[in-house]
Amino acid sequence: MRIALPHRGWLFDLDGTVYLGEALLPGAAETIAALRADGRRVAFLSNKPLFTRADYAEKLTRLGIPTGADEVVNSSIVLARHLQKLDPGAPVFVIGEAPLIGELREHGFEVRDDAEVRWVVIAFDRTFDYAKLNTALQAVRRHDARLIATNPDRTCPVEGGEIPDCAGMTAAVEAVSGKQVEVVVGKPSSIILQVALDTLAVEARDCVIVGDRIETDIVMGKRLGLATVLVLSGITRGDDPRIAELAPDLVVPGIRALLG
Amino acid sequence: MRIALPHRGWLFDLDGTVYLGEALLPGAAETIAALRADGRRVAFLSNKPLFTRADYAEKLTRLGIPTGADEVVNSSIVLARHLQKLDPGAPVFVIGEAPLIGELREHGFEVRDDAEVRWVVIAFDRTFDYAKLNTALQAVRRHDARLIATNPDRTCPVEGGEIPDCAGMTAAVEAVSGKQVEVVVGKPSSIILQVALDTLAVEARDCVIVGDRIETDIVMGKRLGLATVLVLSGITRGDDPRIAELAPDLVVPGIRALLG
Repeated sequence: MRIALPHRGWLFDLDGTVYLGEALLPGAAETIAALRADGRRVAFLSNKPLFTRADYAEKLTRLGIPTGADEVVNSSIVLARHLQKLDPGAPVFVIGEAPLIGELREHGFEVRDDAEVRWVVIAFDRTFDYAKLNTALQAVRRHDARLIATNPDRTCPVEGGEIPDCAGMTAAVEAVSGKQVEVVVGKPSSIILQVALDTLAVEARDCVIVGDRIETDIVMGKRLGLATVLVLSGITRGDDPRIAELAPDLVVPGIRALLG
Repeated sequence: MRIALPHRGWLFDLDGTVYLGEALLPGAAETIAALRADGRRVAFLSNKPLFTRADYAEKLTRLGIPTGADEVVNSSIVLARHLQKLDPGAPVFVIGEAPLIGELREHGFEVRDDAEVRWVVIAFDRTFDYAKLNTALQAVRRHDARLIATNPDRTCPVEGGEIPDCAGMTAAVEAVSGKQVEVVVGKPSSIILQVALDTLAVEARDCVIVGDRIETDIVMGKRLGLATVLVLSGITRGDDPRIAELAPDLVVPGIRALLG
C-alpha cells in the first residue's frame, strides 16, 4: 500500500478525523497500522482537558487502534508542561475537572482550593460554579494572579448538539476580574503543536497534521510549516471557501484516502 | 430647615448614599424626613436584583427611614416591567436568585427550568453554575432565545472586598452562545430611571437624583435631564477628575448637606 505523503511524523486530530463519538471512521485502524508498519511516527492530538492521556489511549485501543498514553497529546498535559516552564511548582487554583487537576499535581504544582495562588488555570469545566468564579476573582484581586487557559473553544460537540466549553469560563473570569488570559495552550496555539512535535521527535517540516477543522488543525499546521491534510469526515464541508484560501496540501474525504 | 434644591421628586441611590452596609450615613434619616415633611416625593434606587423591594423597605425602616415597598425601585422590578412591555407572559429561563424569579412570576411570566423559552434573563446570581450556562446555550441554539440582563456591574462591593456581579454571568452566556445581551435595564440605563420617575409621578426636569457613583447615578441623571447631586460618602473621591467633566449640580460630602 502506498502512503499519500512521505513525511516521517503524523499527527492526527481525534473527533471527526479518527473517530466520531464511539465509532472509528472508515479505514482509520488500517491507515494508522499501515503508517506504523512503514516506520512512521504517529501521535494523536486533542483540545479536550476532560480526559487523561491514558483515557484516550484506552479508548483508541478499545476501538481497534492500539495506543500508549505517550502517543496522546491533549490540552491538560500541554498546559501542565507549559506552566512548568513559566513557574514550576507554583500554587494554582484550577477551574477544571479531575484529570486536569491530576495532571497538574503530577507535574509538581500545588493545587489549592483557595485564592492563595499565583495562577488561575481555566479549562472546560462541567463543575464550574459561582464559588469558583469568586475564588478566581479573589486570586486576581489579592495576589494579582495570572490567568492561563487550556483551549479557546466556545462549545464542545456532543451527540445531538453542543455544550459550553472553555470560552464560557474564560469570559466569566475575564469579565469580573478585569484581567485577560495571557496564554491559551490548545489548538490553534503553536504550544500544543510543539509538544506534539517533541513527542514524535521529528522536525515540523518532516511532519503532517491531519484534521477536520480548518481554523485550528490546518491554520496551526501551516503556521509551523507542517504538511496539512484536511479530512471532510468531520465539521468542514467540501464547499467551504476557506479551503481555497488556506490551501491544505491534501483535501480528502476521510482518513482512509491516505492509503493508496 | 432649608432644602438645597427646589425639585419635587428625589431619587436616592442606597449603598454609599443613604447607608453603608448596616449603618445609616450621618443625617440620612433627618434629610429624608425633612423632604417628606416638605411635601417632596422620595424613592430609592438600587441595581441589585438579590433582594425584593419589600426587603429594601424593611431594611430602611429598621435603620430609621420608614419606607414602603412601592418607594423602592431595583433592577428586578424594572426588568419584570420592561419585559412585560416587550413580551408579556413569555416563557423565560432565569440565571438569577429567588427574589427575581418571584418578581417575574408575579408579573405573569412563565419561569421555566429548561430551554423551552423565548428569553434568558441574566442577573447577579450567586447560584450560577455550568448547568444554568448550558440551559442558556440550549435556549439560544434551539429557540434563538433573546438575552436580557438586570445590571452591568462587574463586581458588587461587600464588607472587606467585592464579589462577582452580573457581568460575569453575562460574559459567560455571550461567549458560549455567540449572542449578545440586547437590553441591560439597571443603572446607567434610562430604563430604570424612567420606572423611578413613573413611581414618583414627576417629570425628569422636576426631579433630583442623589448618588455616589459618577458613571451610573450622575451620567444617567444628566442624560435624562434630572438635577444631579454627587455625594462623596461612597465610592467617589473629591479629587476625581470626572467631577469637573460631568459637572453635577451639587457635590456634597454627604446626604446631610442637602439640609441647610
